[in-house]
Amino acid sequence: MGAAGHADGVILLRGGAEVYRYDSDHEPVFRQESYFAHLFGVKEPDCWAMIELPSGRSTLFIPKLAPEYAIWMGEIKAPSWFEQHYGVDAVLFVNELQAAVGGAVGSATPSQTPIYILSGTNSDSGLDLATVLPITEGVPAGSIVDSRSLYTVAAECRVRKSTEEVEVMRYAAWVSSCAHSSVMREARAGMLEYQLEALFLFHCAFHGGCRHQAYTCICACGPDGAVLHYGHAGAPNERQLLETDMALLDMGCEYQFYASDITCSFPLSDEFSADQRVVYEAVLDSQRQILNAMRPGVPWSDMHRLMWRVTLTHLSKAGLVRGDLEAMLEANVGYIFTPHGLGHLIGIDTHDVGGYLPHTPKRSDVNGLKRLRTARVLEAGMVLTVEPGCYFIDALLEPALAEGSAYRQYLVPEVEVYDSLSSVQQDD
Amino acid sequence: MGAAGHADGVILLRGGAEVYRYDSDHEPVFRQESYFAHLFGVKEPDCWAMIELPSGRSTLFIPKLAPEYAIWMGEIKAPSWFEQHYGVDAVLFVNELQAAVGGAVGSATPSQTPIYILSGTNSDSGLDLATVLPITEGVPAGSIVDSRSLYTVAAECRVRKSTEEVEVMRYAAWVSSCAHSSVMREARAGMLEYQLEALFLFHCAFHGGCRHQAYTCICACGPDGAVLHYGHAGAPNERQLLETDMALLDMGCEYQFYASDITCSFPLSDEFSADQRVVYEAVLDSQRQILNAMRPGVPWSDMHRLMWRVTLTHLSKAGLVRGDLEAMLEANVGYIFTPHGLGHLIGIDTHDVGGYLPHTPKRSDVNGLKRLRTARVLEAGMVLTVEPGCYFIDALLEPALAEGSAYRQYLVPEVEVYDSLSSVQQDD
Ligand SMILES: [Mn+2]
Ligand SMILES: [Mn+2]
Repeated sequence: MGAAGHADGVILLRGGAEVYRYDSDHEPVFRQESYFAHLFGVKEPDCWAMIELPSGRSTLFIPKLAPEYAIWMGEIKAPSWFEQHYGVDAVLFVNELQAAVGGAVGSATPSQTPIYILSGTNSDSGLDLATVLPITEGVPAGSIVDSRSLYTVAAECRVRKSTEEVEVMRYAAWVSSCAHSSVMREARAGMLEYQLEALFLFHCAFHGGCRHQAYTCICACGPDGAVLHYGHAGAPNERQLLETDMALLDMGCEYQFYASDITCSFPLSDEFSADQRVVYEAVLDSQRQILNAMRPGVPWSDMHRLMWRVTLTHLSKAGLVRGDLEAMLEANVGYIFTPHGLGHLIGIDTHDVGGYLPHTPKRSDVNGLKRLRTARVLEAGMVLTVEPGCYFIDALLEPALAEGSAYRQYLVPEVEVYDSLSSVQQDD
Repeated sequence: MGAAGHADGVILLRGGAEVYRYDSDHEPVFRQESYFAHLFGVKEPDCWAMIELPSGRSTLFIPKLAPEYAIWMGEIKAPSWFEQHYGVDAVLFVNELQAAVGGAVGSATPSQTPIYILSGTNSDSGLDLATVLPITEGVPAGSIVDSRSLYTVAAECRVRKSTEEVEVMRYAAWVSSCAHSSVMREARAGMLEYQLEALFLFHCAFHGGCRHQAYTCICACGPDGAVLHYGHAGAPNERQLLETDMALLDMGCEYQFYASDITCSFPLSDEFSADQRVVYEAVLDSQRQILNAMRPGVPWSDMHRLMWRVTLTHLSKAGLVRGDLEAMLEANVGYIFTPHGLGHLIGIDTHDVGGYLPHTPKRSDVNGLKRLRTARVLEAGMVLTVEPGCYFIDALLEPALAEGSAYRQYLVPEVEVYDSLSSVQQDD
């Protein structure tokens, strides 16, 4: 790699492997690893790739499938199909990988030409790709492996989206948006939360051709709206909807590897209660002001603080918080109502990579800001979600209202009986 | 364990762990490991359990969740909730696991009381649970671990279903069956295969409350019907349906961990062509005869052979094969048209465990029979799918028709231009 970008070397990448459910032969539908998807767009499992430097020549390695594969899985595609379909310079079989990498490395300056591999900590999960998908079997004995240079470069390449990427993302967002509208039209009291999920998935798959979702559907109605990641196996969208519920639906499909992420909040009765309206307007106003303020050069943390400012202004007017606005902001009162970050980079992963890299602003240690998945300064080509929210979460309100809490003076006791309401949307 | 079933010891079991997509924080909806689901029905991830012998006293170990979990994932359920909900004798935290296991082992005859763990080869996948979900962290230093006795016993417990299990399985099969009907009503030329998948998933989720599918939907229309496991990431149900197509839809939902597995074949035009009818009738007749013949004491391989006999009889009448029926059966000609096994045990896994255990008939090495996922003698309480089929697969027909092939004398050359047709159904 090197500063000039003309160094010799070989970039070695491993695609996702087919996985099974525990010890069974149950295979979930394969989804390519995101870096591999970004670089090659390959949908098939168990591939590898190498990019030779400085030429940039790319070789895709595909598994050699036994002839009976054709009976079970369909026509075995020839290397030439892969070459043409994915636009790589050459296609070989995985069993030729070590020799090819060795040849590519050896043909430069034998003992000093490095093999660059992807290794670094994903700042959302804490995981390292080099541990999850080890590349040992692709590395010829005695090679020099550089596991430090590539990660930041590869992540940075995913941060700014190309025009084509933005077009695919617009499509995914459009499908999700239409699906949300259709759910909103169908939702009524008496239904179960998972039926809203079913309606959403159907629209995305049937009308949009989206087989994958960007994340598990969160269909949180009534009190469930106060659980940020509701919808998981322990709380599987199973509550029955009441006429008086607000629905908070956070759902987004994936199309051709690219994610969308949209949340809609609406009252099931079609009419906001006075309380619901206060909160809804606070969040909507936050979102509008943030969308107006976002531009290259603006630090993302400033947008998060703007959300707190707007929300607290509304809550203050409604008598749900009290005291001087600047003092409340100073005391971080916004965290009690919005414990999550304003939004995140989005792309091939819903929480896309590049949020925190060695050359970008560090993660804050202030509650709430700490949860921001990036503190970067906005640049043209970045795509971020804008998801302001306002929640009434017992686990936060109770300690905040307790004797001795620094938050206590700013809160009004009635705040605890508020229904859980929130509104969130996605934009780029 | 031991023959009398009164031995001392502790059975140590590990539940499924939350997994992530590669190095990202993308979490698919958690699905419990099947043995753990069978024994405890626990839906939550990252649990362990111990059963003390000979008393049978059960203890569930749940993860100790940090207080902020409540903000993101909802109310933290108390141990008493788990105790009551899952009917175990005691609930502790996972960080108390080693000590509890040590205590239970030590309280018997210290140096000789074994810890029994699940380890054995799943005969469908070739994988071993002890490798996939290692139990090392649950085993106190110096313990005697018995990794051989438990697997066969635990698998055998899953082979014969209780009345309650059968009831849940009937429900899952009923939901899948209704969903198939609804797909059949909606399917028409011009649609895409994935739209049939979307319709099926919608019905199962919206009307049946089934969030998981037992396996990836196979929506194989026209020539895709000849690909047994069509629908995977490399062939994602994306063909457009023609008026002249047969649809072969192999789809089944899961309900409360229990699988269903149903295949329907029908012509999109609502009218079989003469060719389509021949094949459809052959398969339907196979299925009827097999359902009539199935009873305790019958070897499953005999049912597979009955399928070949019935199918070849029909093909012979239609002039697609020629020669003496017994000679054809002897020459294994059925394999060319039905390369897969007749059906399989079904339960918490679609391909359920217990097909081949040390005390059951060995796997055949004859083509076709070799693919049977069990060669057991039928017993009351077993649930198996009955999925006869008849395919026209180039990868099998071409070599079978080639000069020198032992199959050649029985085949009629036109067989190769046959459309791919098949019919399969599920029963218990
Ligand atoms: Mn989001
Ligand atoms: Mn099956």
